[in-house]
Amino acid sequence: MAVNKKYIIGIDIGGSKINAILFSNGKILKSGKIPTLKKSRKEFLEKLEALVKKLISDTGNKKIFGIGCGVAGTLDLKSGMILKSHNLKILDGFNIKNWLYKKFNCEVKIDNDARCFLRAEYIFGAGRGYKNLIGITLGTGVGGGIIINGKMFYGANDSAGELGQMVIDREKDLETLTVKLVRKLKFSKIAVKEFEKNLGTGLANIINIIDPEMIIIGGGAAKTAKENLAKVEMMATKFIISLKSRKNVKIIIGKLGENAGAMGATALFLE
Amino acid sequence: MAVNKKYIIGIDIGGSKINAILFSNGKILKSGKIPTLKKSRKEFLEKLEALVKKLISDTGNKKIFGIGCGVAGTLDLKSGMILKSHNLKILDGFNIKNWLYKKFNCEVKIDNDARCFLRAEYIFGAGRGYKNLIGITLGTGVGGGIIINGKMFYGANDSAGELGQMVIDREKDLETLTVKLVRKLKFSKIAVKEFEKNLGTGLANIINIIDPEMIIIGGGAAKTAKENLAKVEMMATKFIISLKSRKNVKIIIGKLGENAGAMGATALFLE
Repeated sequence: MAVNKKYIIGIDIGGSKINAILFSNGKILKSGKIPTLKKSRKEFLEKLEALVKKLISDTGNKKIFGIGCGVAGTLDLKSGMILKSHNLKILDGFNIKNWLYKKFNCEVKIDNDARCFLRAEYIFGAGRGYKNLIGITLGTGVGGGIIINGKMFYGANDSAGELGQMVIDREKDLETLTVKLVRKLKFSKIAVKEFEKNLGTGLANIINIIDPEMIIIGGGAAKTAKENLAKVEMMATKFIISLKSRKNVKIIIGKLGENAGAMGATALFLE
Repeated sequence: MAVNKKYIIGIDIGGSKINAILFSNGKILKSGKIPTLKKSRKEFLEKLEALVKKLISDTGNKKIFGIGCGVAGTLDLKSGMILKSHNLKILDGFNIKNWLYKKFNCEVKIDNDARCFLRAEYIFGAGRGYKNLIGITLGTGVGGGIIINGKMFYGANDSAGELGQMVIDREKDLETLTVKLVRKLKFSKIAVKEFEKNLGTGLANIINIIDPEMIIIGGGAAKTAKENLAKVEMMATKFIISLKSRKNVKIIIGKLGENAGAMGATALFLE
């Protein structure tokens, strides 16, 4: 039986919510969502376990081939350790891969949540057919992923793509400058302008450095970005040096919605 | 006769000076240098022609196998057109590849000057043995190059690596914020602090995005950067999110000196 005919669980652990899906044969069979409990690791893990168990019970408790898990944070991919999670500090130093393996007795693969988002959009969504793509997630934090020549780019220490940490305004980074604005956008025109400027500047920096074919925006605030996309693009254009890149680069919103991250986590088994 | 046994001319056209070398069998046989004349394209080309002719005459007017030419600016690599040169506007829209071919009747290859610097350091200098490197040149402008998995990375529009255009302070980019300080460093402690902060911030952004093994600094102001490297690194460290990258990344000054760019231009014939 090919990998994609088997049951795979995909988990996307973000700063505000955890999405999980039961995936088989290229389709989402079931999905579940819980808020991310940030106060105690024990409580966090109890809820996560229950979420996954529910999906397994939906198969009639059949054998699960593997669990793919995306986590917001810097990871040691080999060991499975969460080194540092900006927006979920209770997981710092926790080996999520080992824990999932012990709990569910199947192969486990992990990756950064923004890479999972990009992987999903690349395989199943808006990025199909392209080979050089950037994914940027706007949620509790700002994350990123880079695909070069059709392959996820990890860098020398598995840390490539930390786009949210890019300083764009003196000592302030894109994440700090963007995330806090998202909630204010409905009420404040100044916030909208700032958001457009900050995101546009961040995207221009990425385009000047990586020169991708496409940037796909995802995460909880992707819808908000969509409403302001024309102006974000205008701001970006101002700072892109290459006229060719300016003309050719596509800046779009992801197609897969809130389950993209979990889908990309299952797709770790396709690599 | 293998390529490296033949005579190759390497040219490095920067914002302030043009370096050219006669290269054969892995060695610089002769070199020449002239200031970059920025007022008229005609005069610029006359001086460039004379510089190259002098090197050819040094061979006893033997057959030249090829000319490699690095140019500060965005280029159309296929046609050989200089699309936009920030610091040498008289060359905007000029096809340097065709011109060299017609003048000297040999194969011509061109690339961005910062990529030439990085290519030279990667093959002959400080980057030997590494596979994921960034080159950053501090000169009249700030340029950059990226090597991923041992290959120069060009991006979707040949524009990857424009590190100088990275906005790090509101609407001001690394080039604007750094280059103007270089001349002041000897006289002003405030300028030194600003330089360290700006360069450190730029390097941190690059490390957070690309996560390279090594960053090699070159260009006319590389010596200045060397004197302040410890503090530049400290500033960078502050903004690098991955502890592993922070520990592992090497930030060093190039080994090849002022002919690095011209050497990297000749190395276009080794690819």
